[in-house]
Amino acid sequence: MVDGEFELIDRHFRALGAPRTDVVLGVGDDGAILRPPPAHDLIAVSDTLVEGVHFPVGSAPRSIGHRSLAVNLSDVAAMGATPAWALLSLTLPARDDRWLADFARGFATLASRHEVALVGGDTTRGPLAIGVQVLGFVPQGRGLRRTGGRPGDQIYVSGTPGDAAAGLEIVRDVSSARDATTRDATTRDATTCEFLRARFEYPTPRLTLGAALRDVASACIDVSDGLAGDVGKLAAASGCGARLDVERLRPSAALSRYASPERLRAWMLAGGDDYELVFTVSAANRSRFEQAAREFEWQQIGELVVEPGVTLCEHGRRIDLSAASFDHFG
Amino acid sequence: MVDGEFELIDRHFRALGAPRTDVVLGVGDDGAILRPPPAHDLIAVSDTLVEGVHFPVGSAPRSIGHRSLAVNLSDVAAMGATPAWALLSLTLPARDDRWLADFARGFATLASRHEVALVGGDTTRGPLAIGVQVLGFVPQGRGLRRTGGRPGDQIYVSGTPGDAAAGLEIVRDVSSARDATTRDATTRDATTCEFLRARFEYPTPRLTLGAALRDVASACIDVSDGLAGDVGKLAAASGCGARLDVERLRPSAALSRYASPERLRAWMLAGGDDYELVFTVSAANRSRFEQAAREFEWQQIGELVVEPGVTLCEHGRRIDLSAASFDHFG
Repeated sequence: MVDGEFELIDRHFRALGAPRTDVVLGVGDDGAILRPPPAHDLIAVSDTLVEGVHFPVGSAPRSIGHRSLAVNLSDVAAMGATPAWALLSLTLPARDDRWLADFARGFATLASRHEVALVGGDTTRGPLAIGVQVLGFVPQGRGLRRTGGRPGDQIYVSGTPGDAAAGLEIVRDVSSARDATTRDATTRDATTCEFLRARFEYPTPRLTLGAALRDVASACIDVSDGLAGDVGKLAAASGCGARLDVERLRPSAALSRYASPERLRAWMLAGGDDYELVFTVSAANRSRFEQAAREFEWQQIGELVVEPGVTLCEHGRRIDLSAASFDHFG
Repeated sequence: MVDGEFELIDRHFRALGAPRTDVVLGVGDDGAILRPPPAHDLIAVSDTLVEGVHFPVGSAPRSIGHRSLAVNLSDVAAMGATPAWALLSLTLPARDDRWLADFARGFATLASRHEVALVGGDTTRGPLAIGVQVLGFVPQGRGLRRTGGRPGDQIYVSGTPGDAAAGLEIVRDVSSARDATTRDATTRDATTCEFLRARFEYPTPRLTLGAALRDVASACIDVSDGLAGDVGKLAAASGCGARLDVERLRPSAALSRYASPERLRAWMLAGGDDYELVFTVSAANRSRFEQAAREFEWQQIGELVVEPGVTLCEHGRRIDLSAASFDHFG
């Protein structure tokens, strides 16, 4: 970390997030000194957002700050863990104190909400990219994985996937000065658009749900790249396949107002950026799950099966939907 | 992590580095599950290398892989800690399996040497940048910091700073097809150039020395931005200043052959990229230090003083040297 970086970090990021007694030494030295709790496993996740790839050029810095942390907290949630400490690697094309202040506010608000302390990182000059790592804890041996699903387990998703894809379209329409309300015949009032936009710009990591699923779900993954694709990854990691019953997918009321049935179905299955949790539950754990998850919004959407791959079914008949997942290198 | 990324990571980075029994779950899930040892503090460091900023465009991928880990291991060394686990966030302009294989080899060779396991990370498309985080351990309460120095403590540096700056010049000369041997009248044989170039391309993190300095050094920092600048940071963090006795600086034999006395002095004081350790020792710990550090190469180069800032002295007389540190945002 060089002088200018240090000053940047110092001004905007020192003591950002929640104060924690397990931070022996935070931002400002060669590294952070942290005190893990006994009898817990450490969870380490890492995700990078690149301008023009993971968010549109010119996105609101507060949203970028929120999302750069949220996508990592979502990974922590998918492990059934509780987050504690974050590291931030910020690559910036130029020094911009206003941008940094807004970015820091987005990051800090979410960090404080989940009692996460920023304990280190670095700032470098280059094309805008934000790398975040989050460290968290789970009672020893109880971390959730993608690998524990078995044929016959029911597949669930939290919340209402597809909203973020619509939100991204709205953000793009606004930044290209198009009027989203003229796109098609569906109703697109300002409240609907604001709701969907916030679902892209300020996603909610499902940390409480993830923790509640420990010892209950057989496998878990977060929905970052699209529901069908992420279900496929969970199934493959569990050594089986998945059947998705698309008629079960319930869109949010806002998405129903915003998009035609065909578009909202495509977004629900392949949209990405939702940061909901997909998880599986065995028949034996079904009632424990319903007890544990009674405070959360979730949908039962299918079942793990023996045959590999993801099969989409509608009222029991196989259907085809191309481009079911989004791939940066595709 | 999306499909293409996963495949990239999977092919080149799965099980990269040393196998470790404290890795419960490595690359391939939403996060890694790790088991910290009892009675130790966790050390977390993070550093990003951006093409064109931290290494020349077109650098050898094996060197980039080595350096991206080495700069982080150097931070771990400066904390007196032992590294254990690494996360890698790779941003690539395009998929290039040959480049990735060479990069992974550079990263893996150094990781294996220090028993570091790669446990996670992500791959995204964008301008070439490599973010690495390393987690390590130090016995509880015994981490080295920048803040413990006091006026009167002697200042030391490991190895021979300045070599990497000469090595960077050689790398640049080679990539611009200039002949470094014609630059000035000093002797520049191939062996000299290879040695200096390797000091830039394949720096050695001083992990064994860092661990030996626990309970012995009063403060420690690694030399990433230039000796004088990094001494200044240590002094400022310790609430004092520093006097550097420049006549004490001993260049490597290779640097003496490569550069004129004026240039090598500037490089030794301000060159950066050396990843040596600067540390301070109180009079009371002097003999313990000499015992602990007897197997290592080091130079005594000055003293912490009450007056803030870094004063350069030659045979007791103050001298002036501008641009004593390099600042990305300067």
